[in-house]
Amino acid sequence: MEKEIKSIGILGGSGALGSGLSYRLGKAGYQIVVGSRNPGMASEKINEINQRLKQEKISIESNYLAAEKSDLVILAVPFSNHSALVEEIAPVVQKKIVVDTTVPLVPPKVARVQLPEFGSVAKKTQELLGNDVRVVSAFHNVAAALLIGDNPIKGEVLVFGNNKDARENIIGLIQKIGMKGWHAGSIDNSVVAESMTSVLIFMNKFYKMEGAGINIYDSNINH
Amino acid sequence: MEKEIKSIGILGGSGALGSGLSYRLGKAGYQIVVGSRNPGMASEKINEINQRLKQEKISIESNYLAAEKSDLVILAVPFSNHSALVEEIAPVVQKKIVVDTTVPLVPPKVARVQLPEFGSVAKKTQELLGNDVRVVSAFHNVAAALLIGDNPIKGEVLVFGNNKDARENIIGLIQKIGMKGWHAGSIDNSVVAESMTSVLIFMNKFYKMEGAGINIYDSNINH
Repeated sequence: MEKEIKSIGILGGSGALGSGLSYRLGKAGYQIVVGSRNPGMASEKINEINQRLKQEKISIESNYLAAEKSDLVILAVPFSNHSALVEEIAPVVQKKIVVDTTVPLVPPKVARVQLPEFGSVAKKTQELLGNDVRVVSAFHNVAAALLIGDNPIKGEVLVFGNNKDARENIIGLIQKIGMKGWHAGSIDNSVVAESMTSVLIFMNKFYKMEGAGINIYDSNINH
Repeated sequence: MEKEIKSIGILGGSGALGSGLSYRLGKAGYQIVVGSRNPGMASEKINEINQRLKQEKISIESNYLAAEKSDLVILAVPFSNHSALVEEIAPVVQKKIVVDTTVPLVPPKVARVQLPEFGSVAKKTQELLGNDVRVVSAFHNVAAALLIGDNPIKGEVLVFGNNKDARENIIGLIQKIGMKGWHAGSIDNSVVAESMTSVLIFMNKFYKMEGAGINIYDSNINH
């Protein structure tokens, strides 16, 4: 039986998406270990979040130690740091679920899809970590600015991964922070959410929206 | 000034998506020229649609003639026929808007994203046709079975293309068949909708939905 998830390591956890996830997941009751390349610099931001949470739910470590100490690991680092970090943590995440949130944006044209030559980032993560790690891909299409706030988020989360139970686990986590997650297929399908982010950035700009997201809808044929 | 669009050529118009679009656009008042590799075999299906429309809104031609005779051209052929057809019609679609609906599905694993090596199909269409053709990419994420019916469709349409006015034109067309279209960026972004189809096929199967589609939502940060 799967060990109950109590602690979550959020690597890159002091970045925009990472601190939003730290806040929401800390609020949901998890013990959070933020991983940072520079724990000293991250501490001010994390202290602020702990103050908002009114308890010390979040501690800071190096990315390696955060990955090692946690039941579940979330990757929230910039695309440029992704591969090196995945290789570094490989030994300490075996048998765990690793959630990859990485969007392959290439500044400055972030409203334009520019997929890496190897295609999907999460698929590469699965290859680098090997089949004993259950890689789940999620959270690409949620605005970081929404996660760090307290309002309900109406955008939904596409959840990809080759292991159905691991996807289900993360969908449960998503539910605990008040959002809806969807089983969206194998890790091969992750490229959809990884590329969708640029479309949402485009729409935010074009339509002057603030946190464009997607919903899944069933236009039932017979009704 | 742009010539008003009266006639629409739907290449592959007797296929599942093509006949759905023929029906809805015929119903909206457009003169439809269905293009078919085998006009004789397509005629029964098209006659049925004309009977439902209670007028002869739809005629049949070869794909080449349908493209030549129409103000606007929609590509609704299978992925395997796509490149050859685009090269064939290139001379007769110059200065026109060409709407590419092609989804690069590779049977039998259609619930799994398997992007072609060159990436986006619509981007390739733009390259093959040259910059005097305004390629717009749309309709990838609408179930054909919904289009051929009469119920309102709640799924929305992501509209891509390098020319904003051409996108706007197609968003107007989408509105006329009772759906909502969104400006979703340049043709580089089309890969999002092209790959999303496999996710929706996966979801239809996994959740026993009938016509899963996507909606865009603004989770406004300040409200």
